[in-house]
Amino acid sequence: MTNTVNAPYTTPSYAVNSKDDKFKLWACPRRVPRSEDVRIAIEYCGICHSDLHQVRNEWQNAMYPMVPGHEIVGRVVQLGEDAQKKGKFKVGDVVGVGCFVDSCRSCDACKRGLEIQFCPQVVMTYNARGKDGEPTYGGYAREVVVAYPYVLRIPDALAKPEMLPRAAPLLCAGITTFSPLRYAGVKKGSRVAVIGLGGLGHMAVRLAKAMGCEVSLFSRSESKRKDALELLKADRYVVSSDAEAMKAEAGRYDLVVDTVSAKHDVQQLLALLAPEGKLCMLGIPPVPLEIPANALVFGRKSIFGSLVGGIKETQEMLDFCGKHGVSCEVEMITPDQIDEAYKRMDRSDVKYRFVIDVNKMPESCA
Amino acid sequence: MTNTVNAPYTTPSYAVNSKDDKFKLWACPRRVPRSEDVRIAIEYCGICHSDLHQVRNEWQNAMYPMVPGHEIVGRVVQLGEDAQKKGKFKVGDVVGVGCFVDSCRSCDACKRGLEIQFCPQVVMTYNARGKDGEPTYGGYAREVVVAYPYVLRIPDALAKPEMLPRAAPLLCAGITTFSPLRYAGVKKGSRVAVIGLGGLGHMAVRLAKAMGCEVSLFSRSESKRKDALELLKADRYVVSSDAEAMKAEAGRYDLVVDTVSAKHDVQQLLALLAPEGKLCMLGIPPVPLEIPANALVFGRKSIFGSLVGGIKETQEMLDFCGKHGVSCEVEMITPDQIDEAYKRMDRSDVKYRFVIDVNKMPESCA
Repeated sequence: MTNTVNAPYTTPSYAVNSKDDKFKLWACPRRVPRSEDVRIAIEYCGICHSDLHQVRNEWQNAMYPMVPGHEIVGRVVQLGEDAQKKGKFKVGDVVGVGCFVDSCRSCDACKRGLEIQFCPQVVMTYNARGKDGEPTYGGYAREVVVAYPYVLRIPDALAKPEMLPRAAPLLCAGITTFSPLRYAGVKKGSRVAVIGLGGLGHMAVRLAKAMGCEVSLFSRSESKRKDALELLKADRYVVSSDAEAMKAEAGRYDLVVDTVSAKHDVQQLLALLAPEGKLCMLGIPPVPLEIPANALVFGRKSIFGSLVGGIKETQEMLDFCGKHGVSCEVEMITPDQIDEAYKRMDRSDVKYRFVIDVNKMPESCA
Repeated sequence: MTNTVNAPYTTPSYAVNSKDDKFKLWACPRRVPRSEDVRIAIEYCGICHSDLHQVRNEWQNAMYPMVPGHEIVGRVVQLGEDAQKKGKFKVGDVVGVGCFVDSCRSCDACKRGLEIQFCPQVVMTYNARGKDGEPTYGGYAREVVVAYPYVLRIPDALAKPEMLPRAAPLLCAGITTFSPLRYAGVKKGSRVAVIGLGGLGHMAVRLAKAMGCEVSLFSRSESKRKDALELLKADRYVVSSDAEAMKAEAGRYDLVVDTVSAKHDVQQLLALLAPEGKLCMLGIPPVPLEIPANALVFGRKSIFGSLVGGIKETQEMLDFCGKHGVSCEVEMITPDQIDEAYKRMDRSDVKYRFVIDVNKMPESCA
């Protein structure tokens, strides 16, 4: 597997061929590493909820065969000439790949390190086409080839064998929650409410705690209290279906991080905000938000949306997590369990992120 | 009129006694100046659109008799002992009073200079009750008595006789537009879109221009093009009912200042924003805003509301206007023309703010 490749090749992967298909082993084409490329032997790949949307063509842009996966960690096995000269990586380094693998590199967004959000030519890690017109395939695969500017360093503390699977989901769930916390300017002592305890919610709690915030976890029932307070070390737990409890929280928060994708009452969340507080939407509910303007005008409150984060900030997030010992709670699965994992995600039955042990993938498709 | 008063007294004013009443001369009670009070001989008072809502009890909290008016400029005629000691004002100074005349002075909001938005005990200039339980009456009156911390200095450039009427609306329309421009962090070269050309819109254009921004005025028809470009010196004029013209503006603006109170399409305005752009709502449309979360998530866009501004920032705004020669376009009326002015405001027939010449008010109610 670690031989140098000098021509386009294939790598074992798990792919679907239609929206109703099950995952099957597939020989995924990879390009011969170009001068700026890093060839990576994948060790672990997280399963993001968006993988499920993409596989089922819920965003109406699916291309098959599809190899999902954009929470990738692995080891450098080959470097192109420029990638080597750059000195950013050497063979054997532990690295990551997130939601995107290229962008125009010259627009204002790219210069500001906001490629993912704003570069019109951003190339997603899978279910997209690269600048060469070829389809991109993701991290449910043995190997991937990515241009070095889009490859992240995994800090030593997270590169240890027992930590590495827990680092994989940082590449999406981690940066998706880190970026809005930074954008909202939270600091030591800020009061942060996290709405919903799933993959994003559990990362938001840990990151906000590591930033020194006072963090409350809001969930619809009592069922997640123990995890929130003991496992994730949230300061407080609020049952959001309890009208009295919600009333008692009114006006308390500098930032509300809303991770819920289902239709829900956003006005109730605006009421949680202190003056000049901010509500961050990470989910995209299926119906428009209904917001009376006076809920914003009185108290000068804001709503903003946020989408993943750029390469520069993703590296900052990884370094921050390395320094503060922040990682994801994961359930490790073997590649043949992906279909079952998707079913469990459908009923929110995961604590709190599935990660595929890619080492268990066959070494060839023969 | 400039004799010292030593007991509660009355001052000529124009008041209504019910929501359907016409304005009539009324002997408005004023308190004897307390130690911290400034007694002010009013010269001009602007007519804000909210005066009309209040008079007609559209906010369901009207108390009659009602003397509206919170865009007040005049001269100091008497100072209480503490007000004098403080040295902030002396008899003869030209001063202003805005939307509120007291607050708790100890809460976090008061300490941060955000009394108006956030102090739960803020006392509005009229149609409210002071801490003493007495009703407050506004600036459609010969005199007013206000505690010195809530009185503003009018800078020399605006205190000149020909400028003073043009300064009055700054106390509401000026600060209401200045505060969100500052909050949004616009600077030289920022692109600002102003939606609607009325009392707020015309101030937003002038203030943003004075801050060095590139300013576009959006209006439904061609009718305001000349005023926008020639009188207010906007850089560009866009007819918002022209779908092609709107499309050409997509993604262009750092800040959109939305002054429209009628129901309107906010999604269309979000489309005008550049990545990380902000939409500021100043009006309160009668139905909730409908906002698809993806219109916020993609491009990390924000919506925020804003309400007037605190005393500290109001003083900064007045000083800024004095320095940069910014003032309002006004139509001066006599006190007997208030009813007619309200009718014209109803059909948006004012360029761009009515100001009552209080000097023309009878000197007594006898």
